Amino acid sequence: TETRGAGVPIGILPTGPLDAITDVAGVRVGQVTIERGRTVHTGVTAVLPHGGNLWQDKVPAGFHAANGFGKFAGSTQVEDLGEIETPILLTNTLSVPEAMAASIEWTLEQPGNAGVRTVNAVVGETNDGLLNDIRGRHVTIADARRAIESATTGPVEEGVVGAGTGTVSFGWKGGIGTASRKLPDSLGGWTVGVLAQTNYGGVLSVAGVPVGQRLGQYLYKDKLPETSADGSVVLVIATDAPLSDRNLRRLAQRAFVGIARTGSAFSNGSGDYAIAFSSAPDVRRTAQRRKGETRLAQLANDAMTPLFQAVAEASEESVYNALFAAHDVTGARGTVRALPGRAVRAMIAADRAPRAGTERP
Amino acid sequence: TETRGAGVPIGILPTGPLDAITDVAGVRVGQVTIERGRTVHTGVTAVLPHGGNLWQDKVPAGFHAANGFGKFAGSTQVEDLGEIETPILLTNTLSVPEAMAASIEWTLEQPGNAGVRTVNAVVGETNDGLLNDIRGRHVTIADARRAIESATTGPVEEGVVGAGTGTVSFGWKGGIGTASRKLPDSLGGWTVGVLAQTNYGGVLSVAGVPVGQRLGQYLYKDKLPETSADGSVVLVIATDAPLSDRNLRRLAQRAFVGIARTGSAFSNGSGDYAIAFSSAPDVRRTAQRRKGETRLAQLANDAMTPLFQAVAEASEESVYNALFAAHDVTGARGTVRALPGRAVRAMIAADRAPRAGTERP
Amino acid sequence: TETRGAGVPIGILPTGPLDAITDVAGVRVGQVTIERGRTVHTGVTAVLPHGGNLWQDKVPAGFHAANGFGKFAGSTQVEDLGEIETPILLTNTLSVPEAMAASIEWTLEQPGNAGVRTVNAVVGETNDGLLNDIRGRHVTIADARRAIESATTGPVEEGVVGAGTGTVSFGWKGGIGTASRKLPDSLGGWTVGVLAQTNYGGVLSVAGVPVGQRLGQYLYKDKLPETSADGSVVLVIATDAPLSDRNLRRLAQRAFVGIARTGSAFSNGSGDYAIAFSSAPDVRRTAQRRKGETRLAQLANDAMTPLFQAVAEASEESVYNALFAAHDVTGARGTVRALPGRAVRAMIAADRAPRAGTERP
Amino acid sequence: TETRGAGVPIGILPTGPLDAITDVAGVRVGQVTIERGRTVHTGVTAVLPHGGNLWQDKVPAGFHAANGFGKFAGSTQVEDLGEIETPILLTNTLSVPEAMAASIEWTLEQPGNAGVRTVNAVVGETNDGLLNDIRGRHVTIADARRAIESATTGPVEEGVVGAGTGTVSFGWKGGIGTASRKLPDSLGGWTVGVLAQTNYGGVLSVAGVPVGQRLGQYLYKDKLPETSADGSVVLVIATDAPLSDRNLRRLAQRAFVGIARTGSAFSNGSGDYAIAFSSAPDVRRTAQRRKGETRLAQLANDAMTPLFQAVAEASEESVYNALFAAHDVTGARGTVRALPGRAVRAMIAADRAPRAGTERP
Repeated sequence: TETRGAGVPIGILPTGPLDAITDVAGVRVGQVTIERGRTVHTGVTAVLPHGGNLWQDKVPAGFHAANGFGKFAGSTQVEDLGEIETPILLTNTLSVPEAMAASIEWTLEQPGNAGVRTVNAVVGETNDGLLNDIRGRHVTIADARRAIESATTGPVEEGVVGAGTGTVSFGWKGGIGTASRKLPDSLGGWTVGVLAQTNYGGVLSVAGVPVGQRLGQYLYKDKLPETSADGSVVLVIATDAPLSDRNLRRLAQRAFVGIARTGSAFSNGSGDYAIAFSSAPDVRRTAQRRKGETRLAQLANDAMTPLFQAVAEASEESVYNALFAAHDVTGARGTVRALPGRAVRAMIAADRAPRAGTERP
Repeated sequence: TETRGAGVPIGILPTGPLDAITDVAGVRVGQVTIERGRTVHTGVTAVLPHGGNLWQDKVPAGFHAANGFGKFAGSTQVEDLGEIETPILLTNTLSVPEAMAASIEWTLEQPGNAGVRTVNAVVGETNDGLLNDIRGRHVTIADARRAIESATTGPVEEGVVGAGTGTVSFGWKGGIGTASRKLPDSLGGWTVGVLAQTNYGGVLSVAGVPVGQRLGQYLYKDKLPETSADGSVVLVIATDAPLSDRNLRRLAQRAFVGIARTGSAFSNGSGDYAIAFSSAPDVRRTAQRRKGETRLAQLANDAMTPLFQAVAEASEESVYNALFAAHDVTGARGTVRALPGRAVRAMIAADRAPRAGTERP
Repeated sequence: TETRGAGVPIGILPTGPLDAITDVAGVRVGQVTIERGRTVHTGVTAVLPHGGNLWQDKVPAGFHAANGFGKFAGSTQVEDLGEIETPILLTNTLSVPEAMAASIEWTLEQPGNAGVRTVNAVVGETNDGLLNDIRGRHVTIADARRAIESATTGPVEEGVVGAGTGTVSFGWKGGIGTASRKLPDSLGGWTVGVLAQTNYGGVLSVAGVPVGQRLGQYLYKDKLPETSADGSVVLVIATDAPLSDRNLRRLAQRAFVGIARTGSAFSNGSGDYAIAFSSAPDVRRTAQRRKGETRLAQLANDAMTPLFQAVAEASEESVYNALFAAHDVTGARGTVRALPGRAVRAMIAADRAPRAGTERP
Repeated sequence: TETRGAGVPIGILPTGPLDAITDVAGVRVGQVTIERGRTVHTGVTAVLPHGGNLWQDKVPAGFHAANGFGKFAGSTQVEDLGEIETPILLTNTLSVPEAMAASIEWTLEQPGNAGVRTVNAVVGETNDGLLNDIRGRHVTIADARRAIESATTGPVEEGVVGAGTGTVSFGWKGGIGTASRKLPDSLGGWTVGVLAQTNYGGVLSVAGVPVGQRLGQYLYKDKLPETSADGSVVLVIATDAPLSDRNLRRLAQRAFVGIARTGSAFSNGSGDYAIAFSSAPDVRRTAQRRKGETRLAQLANDAMTPLFQAVAEASEESVYNALFAAHDVTGARGTVRALPGRAVRAMIAADRAPRAGTERP
């Protein structure tokens, strides 16, 4: 979309048709936005790896903590068993229990799950305590459940929505953003999609342009309305490439390349996590395959580099897409402005324009 | 206590006065047992590192996952920041959200915490789904909160109580067990205490005696009433030694030595976690110390070995203490008998008695 | 062999025909023992995952550090790529460079490797500095290379041999030990083999019998000739089960169950590592399979428990096999006696004999 | 230095006086460059944490593997004990054994170390196999030892020198680079220094400017002379801040922020490692302090963010400093050109110049 995000290509690879995590076949996203009066600005975002029974047909997955000041739930089981068996939910820091409860209850009630007595809920969070009355714990189990149940394929709403309703990035209004990359056939033809909940800070750079410094708003510039210890970014990554859980972990790790490029140095108070899964049917851990020996598709280590490039680009872009889609919000403890999108796009376009002195020597 | 546990010393080190985690100064334990009719057998156990404001005066901590098929909450922050800021709660697998919510709400409400907007709830669990209607999610936030609020120093109830109400070990009724070791002054004089929620299986050995085989009940012997994928053991470890978070992580790792000796091989379906903290005031991360540079007490690496020996012994013994304290329970999906304690003690005493052929050559 | 090891079965599973790591099809072991006068007692042990070109046909592998006070080489690449491409060598602490050099040079020279410009040498070590003049660094590249080149299938020499020539365990002479378990067909029929370099201490237990205490020689008993900070145990684990690298890592982790049962609490000064690989042709990463998408055999998580039981038993037994096979050695800084095997076997047999009071109640 | 590196400030923090790792008090660097004819282009770089006896007075340290396709030696002991006891050496992939041997031998021979029988050599490497006959293993133990023995405080040579003699970055000649940041007193006043061995690729960005694309040379552009699986970057990080080993690990992790900003996505074939230590005397683990309980200085978690910003900036700049300092090299398998520094600096200066449309809205 011509006026979306930074307005220039991020990286060297083409986007998928929607430029969204839902470009990965089967992936569904649902969001519930909770805004009540001035003080409640929060919500839930749900990502479903496929449209079937997630518990019965688990997907291989990898997890990476770039910075552990956060409350991500479900990580140890993902690490040890290499799989996800529920939706992935995002919400605010103090509402993780309600999101977990919704995930558990929804899973128990799915057709075919009457015998299920263990559920590993996967929930990420960031702290929206500047705009949202986070201590009030306003997200209910029913809210989180609606996010799961409303999940659909197709375009994904960005900005002040779902788990991004109350978040702040680089002192500007953050939110939910998404992006994707589709590898050329010569590099495998796979798609990688990212969905980001952006709530962190640093020295904002957009497409390499030092926007934060030019706008006079950056870390240690005494301009951020809050230097709380609780920023964070959570990244959900989907791919249709048939990856092992180990290579999905490596993919999750590379997603932070994109975050680093936006100007984060992963400050102490940030809880920065990524979780990656493959939706490829050939790696799905169905009830049949979970019984014993099976044969699974697997992409070799040597074919990973293009996927790493893709996830780095998509995660970087997803942050910009969140920032440019956001609008001003006045909340519990102040007002946070949206990034001045038109001005920033002009700044970037000027830098990126061809100019004297840039030809190859 | 003469008739407690296996009836013989476990290891070579002396116990503390209570032979309980509460031998570590300041540590408090609270338990809520939930039994309703035949189908509800579950509960909550809370361990408080000290009696003050836990969020304001955090304790250094370390975490270890011996097997990740579990839903332990709060681990990534413990790993990255090296500290705990809440009670440690244990409950059943599907009630983790309610325990987290209780921990969060209790923390927010403590005097002095009005400005707190982030809380890292630490919750362990095992799956009591054989005796308990786990799908019913019968633990409420209020139940979990009562466990916190009722926590006291002094003796700790063992067996069919708290988070051990519905657990099963080696096909026998498991439960909550605790033990401690007090190092001789020549080795530092420190105390190490362990509290275990036992719900796992294997080939039971007690004090080195192959009890499981002698009783004809062990893994692959077709005697276990349930070979569910959801056993587990969670170990909470306290010490008054002034340890760094790194050495607390190493201490947590050694606690599984004790579990291995009881006959576990950490089966696939087990979620086996340990969390260790130091209650020493000299390492406590008070508000003042968290501001910048400080000086903290620290025990050197070279002084760790006796503590490793202590935690191995205490964790092994805590499992026996749980088993011997338990009684028969009939629950949701069958009856689980208590270990026949008198017979087993006799078996062990016989093996341990002096005999011909054991003198030093 | 009737007079080997502890003389009683360890655990509940049957051994393979040789009760050695070489029961796993294709695995080869080579050892070079270096004894010169009183002061030089060291050597090299090599394990080859298969008899082909290891670099071209890599094997999936997993690594686990139970205690990191050691100099294990090659671990990070095993962890990230999930594979081994060289022999696995064991030697003494200060001779790791020569073992690495041998592994690199041998790999570069194999037919078909003329274009190879990267080699990840995998080398474990323990510290034989009590019996061996370790500071003299007496192992040469040629020595290590002979270990590789002499590797064969078939029986494996145990005790005072190869990398175990100068090691000490529980104050007795340690060495190289090996054992295997063959699962019944109902549990998959797979074989698991372990080779151990034993050089650690604690409170020796053999088959559950408190041998260390009965013999009056154990940690803190002031009987150990050396309480150096540099014990260690390194375990090499082979299986023919088609495991993913993640499940091989989990298998490696379970090997320490066996070590715990022998009486170790993983003292501070111990560097305790395990590396596990699958020799199954169906998971081998051949040049062809490393190019892109492939299909690989894979055993599901749910089928892992019997393998975990097997590795725990085999690693425990391999330690006993090393101890019972050793003989007295007088070296650089003293004499270390062999475990009094006949007396200990008698002790164990007496405990294990049927007796009154052990029937099932 | 006005004509050094990219010619513009990288980030928002001031550099130290030398803009080098040696701005951290006590740190020493020594380099040995090995160039023989057309085919041998390699070397060794040594970083010494302080000028005393490193084994006796160990420094706390942290390690991070951003990508494990490498042969970094010594990492597990650093992770478990949290300390370094030797120089840190960098060399080529197949010469790690010789560097380790040099480190061990040098340590054994230092005055006061006659009783030392364990040494954990710390060695990083990257693969210089394009310009260097790496299979020839041309680095000797004596070469590596000269790097240690020639180490001095003061300015550090950059570019085609030491372990950077044969390296390649982004298709241009890489090498050794260094940079530092000195925090303002209000943020603690600490210094962070980085030394980088650059040998990796991607889509080169310099100070945010898409230099790789403008020069028409980047990943997948079919312009790189070699897309070998063996790039890599190794980062050595020093600080005078009194950090715990855990916070040094976090510091090491943040160094890759800088690498991400230069255009790397940590391709499959890259072995990307960082090791960080504190040279502060107040955290040094002297023989006295290693005996038991001590008191150590420690900077709180909450004070870490400025240090994270500093290491991100210094590591990014160190890469540019290596690239701009390099010159064309013709080696074993081709010629690699230096980055056209003057043209690139002009490109960057133009982008960074004030312009219309960039004022704050």
